[in-house]
Amino acid sequence: MPHINVDENLPGIRALLAFSPETAAPISVLTNLLLRSNDGLSMAERELIAAHVSYLNDCFYCHQSHGEIAVCYLNGNNKLVEQVKKDYTKADIPDKLKALLAVAGSVQKGGKYVTHEQIETAKGLGATDRDIHDTVLIAATFCMFNRYVDGLAANTPTDLSTYPLRAKQIVEKGYGDHVFSSKQPVSESSEK
Amino acid sequence: MPHINVDENLPGIRALLAFSPETAAPISVLTNLLLRSNDGLSMAERELIAAHVSYLNDCFYCHQSHGEIAVCYLNGNNKLVEQVKKDYTKADIPDKLKALLAVAGSVQKGGKYVTHEQIETAKGLGATDRDIHDTVLIAATFCMFNRYVDGLAANTPTDLSTYPLRAKQIVEKGYGDHVFSSKQPVSESSEK
Repeated sequence: MPHINVDENLPGIRALLAFSPETAAPISVLTNLLLRSNDGLSMAERELIAAHVSYLNDCFYCHQSHGEIAVCYLNGNNKLVEQVKKDYTKADIPDKLKALLAVAGSVQKGGKYVTHEQIETAKGLGATDRDIHDTVLIAATFCMFNRYVDGLAANTPTDLSTYPLRAKQIVEKGYGDHVFSSKQPVSESSEK
Repeated sequence: MPHINVDENLPGIRALLAFSPETAAPISVLTNLLLRSNDGLSMAERELIAAHVSYLNDCFYCHQSHGEIAVCYLNGNNKLVEQVKKDYTKADIPDKLKALLAVAGSVQKGGKYVTHEQIETAKGLGATDRDIHDTVLIAATFCMFNRYVDGLAANTPTDLSTYPLRAKQIVEKGYGDHVFSSKQPVSESSEK
């Protein structure tokens, strides 16, 4: 069960955002800016970075949620998303995205793990300063979200059928108040 | 030198915020909400948590910056702040804050490192759900900021005299546009 008294009808980070609506507001704005843009990186690429970092941080709620959102953007290609989460080096994705995922993986360990060589490789494959900035900030932001969710032991639905439903809503409407405040019962099988 | 082309006259995270003003806006709002409040935890306690986590993440710019801000709130008690950063268990601070710093230290390693026992200890010493929420979110947020700064190899002033000046400005005016957009030359001795 969660470490603090949150609404048990809301899963994962949504219960925490409802507990603290003041901090939820800028968190939602930041999430939309980082993930709901096709400026440079596509929305699919941004969600893949988020899902991969969350997988490295072993945050089931986050990698399942953002993996399913990536699946929506990738026309249901669940196999590709699972491959990127677990070992992107073997995934059928562009080399530029692989280079950026390498940067994201280093950020997950700690900022100083990002090497000059990783950056030069990404730039050599066409990554712009904006792409690199966004990759580092998405990876860093998910190091925050993953710790927020698991650090407060937020409820994590174990019924996998709930994630695609939520993913579809986010793909259609983005992140924000309508997402985290709407009540959706946590599955009976949720971990408490 | 930084991994991307940022304004070299701005140190640390301020150069990154200026590079990306869209994402800087919600980041500044979140920072003010988390650190500029005496609701439950004091501003001094919030900055001590931020400085300790940044120290654990080996982010010199962040632990030096937030350490100096804590020094301002603690009437110049630099020795206490350094002790909290390096080993809070030996610092002359309330047991409740020690219990919350233990939670923050676990968050730094990863969300799942926070134990039920750590939470119960903090609650037994008077920590409210809000205190625990804010501790976890401050710690998680600095795991983001530290990675943002070092993951992009932002310039870090090595002239220690610049940090108290900046700290005084933040104590007087808070975090925000006026802080990150005002030009202040990076010291000649900055790491590039």
